[in-house]
Amino acid sequence: MLDVRGQFPGVGDWHYLDSAATAQKPQAVIDAIAQAYGPEYATVHRGIYQRSSTMTARYEAARGAAASLIGGQAEETVFTRGATEAINLVARALPRAGRTRVLLSALEHHSNIVPWQLAGYAVDVVPLTGDGRIDLDAAAEIISDDHRVVAFAHVSNVLGAVLDARRAADIAHSKGALLLLDGCQAVPRLPVDVAALGCDFYAFSGHKLYGPTGIGCLWGRAELLDTLPPWQGGGSMIDRVTFEETTYLDAPQRFEAGTPHIVGAIGLHAAIDWAQDLSMDAIHAHECALVAETREALRGLGGVTLYGPDDSAGIVSFNVDGVHPHDTATILDDAGVAVRAGHHCAQPLMDRLGVAATARASFAAHSDSSDVAALVRGVEQVKRIFAR
Amino acid sequence: MLDVRGQFPGVGDWHYLDSAATAQKPQAVIDAIAQAYGPEYATVHRGIYQRSSTMTARYEAARGAAASLIGGQAEETVFTRGATEAINLVARALPRAGRTRVLLSALEHHSNIVPWQLAGYAVDVVPLTGDGRIDLDAAAEIISDDHRVVAFAHVSNVLGAVLDARRAADIAHSKGALLLLDGCQAVPRLPVDVAALGCDFYAFSGHKLYGPTGIGCLWGRAELLDTLPPWQGGGSMIDRVTFEETTYLDAPQRFEAGTPHIVGAIGLHAAIDWAQDLSMDAIHAHECALVAETREALRGLGGVTLYGPDDSAGIVSFNVDGVHPHDTATILDDAGVAVRAGHHCAQPLMDRLGVAATARASFAAHSDSSDVAALVRGVEQVKRIFAR
Repeated sequence: MLDVRGQFPGVGDWHYLDSAATAQKPQAVIDAIAQAYGPEYATVHRGIYQRSSTMTARYEAARGAAASLIGGQAEETVFTRGATEAINLVARALPRAGRTRVLLSALEHHSNIVPWQLAGYAVDVVPLTGDGRIDLDAAAEIISDDHRVVAFAHVSNVLGAVLDARRAADIAHSKGALLLLDGCQAVPRLPVDVAALGCDFYAFSGHKLYGPTGIGCLWGRAELLDTLPPWQGGGSMIDRVTFEETTYLDAPQRFEAGTPHIVGAIGLHAAIDWAQDLSMDAIHAHECALVAETREALRGLGGVTLYGPDDSAGIVSFNVDGVHPHDTATILDDAGVAVRAGHHCAQPLMDRLGVAATARASFAAHSDSSDVAALVRGVEQVKRIFAR
Repeated sequence: MLDVRGQFPGVGDWHYLDSAATAQKPQAVIDAIAQAYGPEYATVHRGIYQRSSTMTARYEAARGAAASLIGGQAEETVFTRGATEAINLVARALPRAGRTRVLLSALEHHSNIVPWQLAGYAVDVVPLTGDGRIDLDAAAEIISDDHRVVAFAHVSNVLGAVLDARRAADIAHSKGALLLLDGCQAVPRLPVDVAALGCDFYAFSGHKLYGPTGIGCLWGRAELLDTLPPWQGGGSMIDRVTFEETTYLDAPQRFEAGTPHIVGAIGLHAAIDWAQDLSMDAIHAHECALVAETREALRGLGGVTLYGPDDSAGIVSFNVDGVHPHDTATILDDAGVAVRAGHHCAQPLMDRLGVAATARASFAAHSDSSDVAALVRGVEQVKRIFAR
């Protein structure tokens, strides 16, 4: 098991089980951010003076690190405000090639539903298997020549289910559609290799990966990213501006209008280095062990419904029978255990599960068996209180 | 004069005269950011546990502070990635009301040109007066019933010229157009009161206001902001999502899709508090004095062309006759003086000034006469080298 809890000033004795919402930050990341806003601070891409050149090199090194983390190239990697903006960018800017539909799944996060609706795509929905995975057999039946994009969560933010992304890519490509993966929950929990997965776009956010808020990445296959026209306009993305006509830089700069979130990129780089020093394999194994421990313990209590497959990645959604998850979360908070309760930005999935909400415990590298034990004690307390 | 230099770990003995590109950060802001990523860190708007409720309150308090800084209301204030995104949002989402044109000026930053072009507006351009101000007499001639928006820089990022915003508002409103002000250079340098100015939208960025990168604000009159449909989709901006139909929250939440830049907002709040403790009047007077000192000294050297009006706010653009500004900036860098040289994201203005680029010195609260003296010594050195 990993032993890094002491590196997180936001954790301490707190049983923080809401890492799927946002990750706590290792001190190394906080220190990198403070340095970057302090003695190292300067703008990028514009200054002639030395410190700005150094900052530009560091910003571009961060891009390289983000690309490398998922097996991509720097020139294929766009810094965005987060995964949400990354998906909006594709939904808005991707040429439609005469197609009008997008294929989603019933477990998608709102950030992978609403952008497609706002962009005017007609939406088709792949159902789930009994244990809460995207039903790829059904996807293979539904996919048609009218689908421009298949957009799936790589890991479900509610159920923790891991997609067979390679097969999803084959299904999308069988009809000439593109595969976009929402990697928000996968990148912090699994080794990811976009080339091996065969996807066309990959989106993830920094704040779930032990990094800063306000930064994320869109990776896109180079020849595809080149086909996207600019979406937002401003400084740093132009080649030549006149009032009559403006020409644009190549990707990825074409998609980064304005002064970027410089320190966000540098903090994300520190977070990536921190996670890779542990290794994504080790983090994955660590979280899988905690998930198994949690599911077994909660199941052993009786009267607890578990959602999602047993091999979920780092996330366990559950309900105490007859208890609203908000009450569960409130009692757990009193016991020093932070879980999320709600629809988890996945209202259509709640509809399909037949519940208004679930409680969700989610793990990170700093989580340990003391967190599981506290959660289980808290759920026992919930059961005692509601049994009265 | 203000005496706060010692509060900036990024300044020290360095003569940092590129604050118009991005401001250095006071230690108080860096400390607030480090605390927010450390023992205080949690997500907002979603968590039931106490620390998340506290963080939500702090995030919303930051919105209130940003609104209050410019005389607006919290519910009229949207957090964006920066001023660039704020302008893109208006350009893309504002209903056109049957109008097709936008009225800009010849001194606009690319971030206030390209979004309108990408959104499909026809662009008209107000010329400048001889001393580098937006020619409002000409604007009054050009404005027509076909202009939906008049979009001007409140303070020019190249020339430092301060707009008579109240008159610009009257001109826009005379034909039923809206006035958007790009306040990137004004908010860090002047007291701003959107009600007194009479504008309809106001955009500014945090990183130029001693705050974090990756955060900015769009203020819009409440009854106007309510008319804008959502632009980016995702979590936190929805009311109810189904695959068939999605409904949205009111402004400002409707425009904040996804996990926001939580710590960006908190750091911006710290920066606003820091600046307001000094008072924006004091910062303005401080920078005006340094501008006057600089213009007089550079003029005294001879062989230096100064751009913009003498009462510029915090910004002095110049060229050493016969010397490319990149060479000027490089020699200044060797002398420990950081200025920007280039088109300053204002290529159309460069075209009108008849130059490829200028050198630009820009001031902040931490600037002092030692910076001016170092700049003048450096320019003398430039003249000596190129006189050989």
